[in-house]
Amino acid sequence: MDSKKRNRRAFLKSGAALAGLTAGGIRPAFGQSSMAEAMSPKNKELIAYGERSKYVKSIRIPVNGRMSPDMYGLTFHVLTPLQDQFGIITPSSLFYVATHRGSYVPEINPSEHRLMIHGMVERPLIFTMDELKRMPFVSRIHFVECQGNRAAPQNTTVQETHGLASCAEWTGVPLSLLLKEAGVKNGAAWVVAEGAEEVKGSSTIPLAKAMDDCLVAYGMNGEAIRPQQGFPLRLLVPGFEGIYQIKYLRRIKVVEQYYMTYDDYGHINADARAAALAEQIGPKSVITFPSGGQQLSGPGFYEINGLAWSGGGEVRKVEISTDNGQHWKEAELRTPSYRMAFTRFALPWTWDGKECVLMSRCIDELGTVQPTRQQVGKFWGDPEDRPRVRGNDNSVMPWKILSDGSVHNGLA
Amino acid sequence: MDSKKRNRRAFLKSGAALAGLTAGGIRPAFGQSSMAEAMSPKNKELIAYGERSKYVKSIRIPVNGRMSPDMYGLTFHVLTPLQDQFGIITPSSLFYVATHRGSYVPEINPSEHRLMIHGMVERPLIFTMDELKRMPFVSRIHFVECQGNRAAPQNTTVQETHGLASCAEWTGVPLSLLLKEAGVKNGAAWVVAEGAEEVKGSSTIPLAKAMDDCLVAYGMNGEAIRPQQGFPLRLLVPGFEGIYQIKYLRRIKVVEQYYMTYDDYGHINADARAAALAEQIGPKSVITFPSGGQQLSGPGFYEINGLAWSGGGEVRKVEISTDNGQHWKEAELRTPSYRMAFTRFALPWTWDGKECVLMSRCIDELGTVQPTRQQVGKFWGDPEDRPRVRGNDNSVMPWKILSDGSVHNGLA
Repeated sequence: MDSKKRNRRAFLKSGAALAGLTAGGIRPAFGQSSMAEAMSPKNKELIAYGERSKYVKSIRIPVNGRMSPDMYGLTFHVLTPLQDQFGIITPSSLFYVATHRGSYVPEINPSEHRLMIHGMVERPLIFTMDELKRMPFVSRIHFVECQGNRAAPQNTTVQETHGLASCAEWTGVPLSLLLKEAGVKNGAAWVVAEGAEEVKGSSTIPLAKAMDDCLVAYGMNGEAIRPQQGFPLRLLVPGFEGIYQIKYLRRIKVVEQYYMTYDDYGHINADARAAALAEQIGPKSVITFPSGGQQLSGPGFYEINGLAWSGGGEVRKVEISTDNGQHWKEAELRTPSYRMAFTRFALPWTWDGKECVLMSRCIDELGTVQPTRQQVGKFWGDPEDRPRVRGNDNSVMPWKILSDGSVHNGLA
Repeated sequence: MDSKKRNRRAFLKSGAALAGLTAGGIRPAFGQSSMAEAMSPKNKELIAYGERSKYVKSIRIPVNGRMSPDMYGLTFHVLTPLQDQFGIITPSSLFYVATHRGSYVPEINPSEHRLMIHGMVERPLIFTMDELKRMPFVSRIHFVECQGNRAAPQNTTVQETHGLASCAEWTGVPLSLLLKEAGVKNGAAWVVAEGAEEVKGSSTIPLAKAMDDCLVAYGMNGEAIRPQQGFPLRLLVPGFEGIYQIKYLRRIKVVEQYYMTYDDYGHINADARAAALAEQIGPKSVITFPSGGQQLSGPGFYEINGLAWSGGGEVRKVEISTDNGQHWKEAELRTPSYRMAFTRFALPWTWDGKECVLMSRCIDELGTVQPTRQQVGKFWGDPEDRPRVRGNDNSVMPWKILSDGSVHNGLA
């Protein structure tokens, strides 16, 4: 065997070790067919709407184990299992949920739902869902992320540290089209969007953003938006913090100044440009394999891989360090890169069995580089040992691998 | 009001008609909050794995109403509701199912599943699922379509006429990588892929295709492939007929000649290039709105929209005719165009209330134009009134709109 062949063979040690086994070694995966089984009521249900395998156990978990409303009765935060996700589409059933606007999900009858556009417009308008669906639409893949993602930076798994971010294909009417139809008056500078849930949650975004790339979305991953995501209508504000992506969207008011709302995170700013930047998610990335709580079976070949995203546009580049940030290597992007969407990156890697720290950093189309934890702390003037940094924490996430192959939070 | 403004206002007649209503007209979408409701077992389940709204009723239906095995006990065909799909991602629960290889879905334990690569290779290999997931992967969006799609060309709805095609984001290992690892011997020209279901369904594809863009896929729309789609492992053969996308993939044998299998559709051909073309889905498109069984509420603005795809690569262009094929207008592509993937097209349109026939045609990156029904019939030498054309029917689909707004199959 020449060295080239040996290299190929060494590519996956365990695979090569199994070479030479015959088909006889393969167990049949199941037993006898059964007509009765095929005709059962359960199978009939599965014709209408399929399910996942009983062997797949990946689930969302509530933040800090809270299964239900907190003391205010309005908070509901559920983390997506990022460690189990493939590609960039988060399955709708596993999409993260975060709200300060009521701990249960309204059951809205779409035939009764309306969207009103009013305020500083020439022609206030009210749309039914059917009317909105008749209008020109677009489908785009975008992430949504909660401002509070990484509120528990020292937790164990990537689900716990980064699970308040997800990505889907959204379909809807460009908000700019509805605003043009209504006719925005001179002097208007902001847009207040309001949901139909009990507390009528609302947020304020700059008019410039509303006229740029926002969607009044009714479709998510090919079907109607799920109730936990705002059925029947949600405002998509690509790249902005989750709280701006108003669920159960029922009202858009064009106004001349920033409106503060009860769960506002302090984005009050008279300057629309500065506010937009404050509301925008910075370049961010996290390694999902290997990540906290996982176990490497021993030295050998692995692919480090994870997700990168930015509110500033496309992910241009992702770099990975396997030596605690001393050296960086460019990762491969394994999916197309869309503006304000998850991108899947990966780097082939042979682990030598020694303790090490893995990191990733995202560089977006603006050239902005995901900062280190030290840089963010310095910006806010915080001590280095403060577990949680302020604002939307987009700092580099370290995973420490011990020599026994166990993976741990490098900040804990 | 100047004419420009009037035009904008006339954009959506019904929307403009509602102008001037106030917020008072909006009904609250639901009643009082309830702690008890938030704490209920049902809500706990919805934390782990979300569900769609009870108001969303879109479901798959079996071909010709057959809920269960046909006379051979091996056929199972379920149509996706294309008329309800948004964007290009088919929700996994609504992805079409078609098989001649057993009418019930095997429940495979992934920890017991193996993939063997053997035949004309230097190093036969067997992989566990864990080993496959350690290897370099890629995520791509691809359609899958049954060769028999349009077997019922005269049926009423687009679900019935075109519902054996769907599209998802797939994640897996390039087959070329596994074959290189095994080392393909000189003289090999074909690859036989076999599934682990009861009948061990198999198909033969050219080695050139296997080394090009095929995936050994374990991920679908972000989670594990669903059992009805081949859990835990499926061969993705982009652009080829569905029967080549082997579910429950357990074996790949590299061989020197075409292997005929029991449900082979007659693709035997000693010439790999000719066979590949015969196995490939032609450029195809269908209008999903307005489509059969739907109802326009009256003259006015609509968007004609639908899906286009091609086994030959990217959809380059889609054209729409509103006068039974006499004149064609270029549609807008409302999603990115990927190779061997659904593309969503649309054309703003004002219906004058008169009877008309709508058609769409796809032009792919090779410049191949989706043929008319007449062209396909002529190619096969069939009489024009034969309802079903031979082969994979990718002919233009006409929808007839009557003056009452009802939409009908133009071939019926």
